Amino acid sequence: MRWAFEEVGLPYDVRLLSFGEMKEAPHRALHPFGQIPTYEDGDLALFESGAIVLHIAERHAGLLPDDANARARAVTWMFAALSTVEPPIVERSMAVLLEREKSWHEERLPILEQRVRGRLDELSKYLGDADWLDGDFSAGDLMMVTVLRRLTGSGILEDYPNLCAHIARAEARPAYGRAFDDQLAVFVVASSD
Amino acid sequence: MRWAFEEVGLPYDVRLLSFGEMKEAPHRALHPFGQIPTYEDGDLALFESGAIVLHIAERHAGLLPDDANARARAVTWMFAALSTVEPPIVERSMAVLLEREKSWHEERLPILEQRVRGRLDELSKYLGDADWLDGDFSAGDLMMVTVLRRLTGSGILEDYPNLCAHIARAEARPAYGRAFDDQLAVFVVASSD
Repeated sequence: MRWAFEEVGLPYDVRLLSFGEMKEAPHRALHPFGQIPTYEDGDLALFESGAIVLHIAERHAGLLPDDANARARAVTWMFAALSTVEPPIVERSMAVLLEREKSWHEERLPILEQRVRGRLDELSKYLGDADWLDGDFSAGDLMMVTVLRRLTGSGILEDYPNLCAHIARAEARPAYGRAFDDQLAVFVVASSD
Repeated sequence: MRWAFEEVGLPYDVRLLSFGEMKEAPHRALHPFGQIPTYEDGDLALFESGAIVLHIAERHAGLLPDDANARARAVTWMFAALSTVEPPIVERSMAVLLEREKSWHEERLPILEQRVRGRLDELSKYLGDADWLDGDFSAGDLMMVTVLRRLTGSGILEDYPNLCAHIARAEARPAYGRAFDDQLAVFVVASSD
């Protein structure tokens, strides 16, 4: 969300929540599943990263192309990131996090890794040596790079040099840098409390 | 997709694919991950159910409210269905399908079922006794009901009477009936081949 705000040059305020607050009634009124992020603008409250980024992208220049067909394809890549690429990545992360002590972990982890690699093989083949997923940088790239970055430290991404280059290209964007620095500042403050 | 077409009254042609064809180059050109559905309209080709339904809904009356804020909330429910509710449902289905013979299946299945129930608890609490997720029927309900129907036969849905009623309300829509009958006709023809 920070990255999307920075790409379109929209100022925003951040309200931080504790893990406890995420599950309490006031936050549930904004997010029925008790997660983050949420988005508020006057009377409007939204949840789901994809919906929020799309909402910002549709109302401000910088994240979606002007051409109607190119716009629909950029939105397709947002859904592809969240519905097709992210689920096996999350499943693998959850296994690493929650099933490390289970008797089956050692046998099951390579199966999950193979599912992730299956999707990355296809994505990498599609991207080829293009800079971005479809023409210029769009909300589709923003969402895909956000999802791919969840694999940092897994040792998997390194086998896909063009996906690494895609991520690096996105991270080199000034808007990404500003969002990253602002997010980092939150953790620095939090850990010095 | 059929259901979305029927809701907005848009005529469409269907092109069926074999499992083999899904993974071959001509289809990969439409869908980099070799899945279905895809959508073609003149020069435009899209993939991802969510993106296709949103594309149809944005261009034809019947699936999104006119009010801009209500529209953004309906889109939020589309993303919630696909990004928050569907992944644990798919994960459970995949375990049932692919891990039935594994030594860990009996221990792991209840964990997966609990994840699904966690999401359904929250969704059910949010829905309460409302007819639809946010005001009138929208693409958000269409997507959520499509996702929830994946649990048919699991014995889980029955513990959530208001979610069952939500599904039944959606299935009672004439557009759903037409889409269902047309889809069923494909299987009847296919199995009589």
